[in-house]
Amino acid sequence: MRLPSTDWIIGFIEGEGNFHVSLSNFKGKKNYPFDYYPLLQFRIFLREDDFKTLKKIKRVIGLGKIYKKNYNYSRKKGIRARDQYVYYITRLEDLFKLENFLKKGIFHSKKKDDMSRFFDIARIKAYKKHLTKKGYEKVIKLANSMNGKSRANFRV
Amino acid sequence: MRLPSTDWIIGFIEGEGNFHVSLSNFKGKKNYPFDYYPLLQFRIFLREDDFKTLKKIKRVIGLGKIYKKNYNYSRKKGIRARDQYVYYITRLEDLFKLENFLKKGIFHSKKKDDMSRFFDIARIKAYKKHLTKKGYEKVIKLANSMNGKSRANFRV
Repeated sequence: MRLPSTDWIIGFIEGEGNFHVSLSNFKGKKNYPFDYYPLLQFRIFLREDDFKTLKKIKRVIGLGKIYKKNYNYSRKKGIRARDQYVYYITRLEDLFKLENFLKKGIFHSKKKDDMSRFFDIARIKAYKKHLTKKGYEKVIKLANSMNGKSRANFRV
Repeated sequence: MRLPSTDWIIGFIEGEGNFHVSLSNFKGKKNYPFDYYPLLQFRIFLREDDFKTLKKIKRVIGLGKIYKKNYNYSRKKGIRARDQYVYYITRLEDLFKLENFLKKGIFHSKKKDDMSRFFDIARIKAYKKHLTKKGYEKVIKLANSMNGKSRANFRV
């Protein structure tokens, strides 16, 4: 199996990679002082028949897991959907390893901005600053500015 | 401006590039013996704020044009849509130059299959074989097998 180069992987990630921050609703939960808890996922979704591509990427990066995403439920409801495979990296320490890998190459698209905000949030979490008011507000601000500001904005 | 490498561009094209064959309805037209006329477009659509990425890609490949795609009409109808820039290569001789460029690197995803069918159709057109029954049937077959067979199939 011929494996892709770092440059190829970065180009592919700029197209298909997704630096995803979800703000999970923690309102009223104990042990966490704020409304939203930030969860980080790096992921690449590909069509079921492109599983091998994800396997190659995972082999080179050396981190993460591949899951099958089944759309049976959508299809039952009459929505035309194909199954997918998803490559995920979610552990904080693995995300920092991913960051080191990505630093070997050069980003050329706006994906770079999302990536840098994503890792800023990861660092805030690593230092437990998301548990302070200042750190939490920074997380919300960074998350709201990501993915072309397409999310419905969260208020601090 | 730091330009992307060939490997980066191929990785990016495997994510975002689109080898598009449209079968234009030519029923009843003179000078063409069949129902559908194949039109070839290589294209990359990006968000408006990622114009610079397309510029860099165009600079390295040295072919094609960039157009703005305006979604005013969709927005007026209440559909949430952002303007885009599109990088197009459509001239047959330019497509063969693109093929030569792409041969410098290695494809790792299923996009490779679409690409090879796309250039097969380009060659059939270049040799005017799409004007023969056998060539035309081959074009329709190739086009129907592209993009994960997602198109509503055309009959010969």
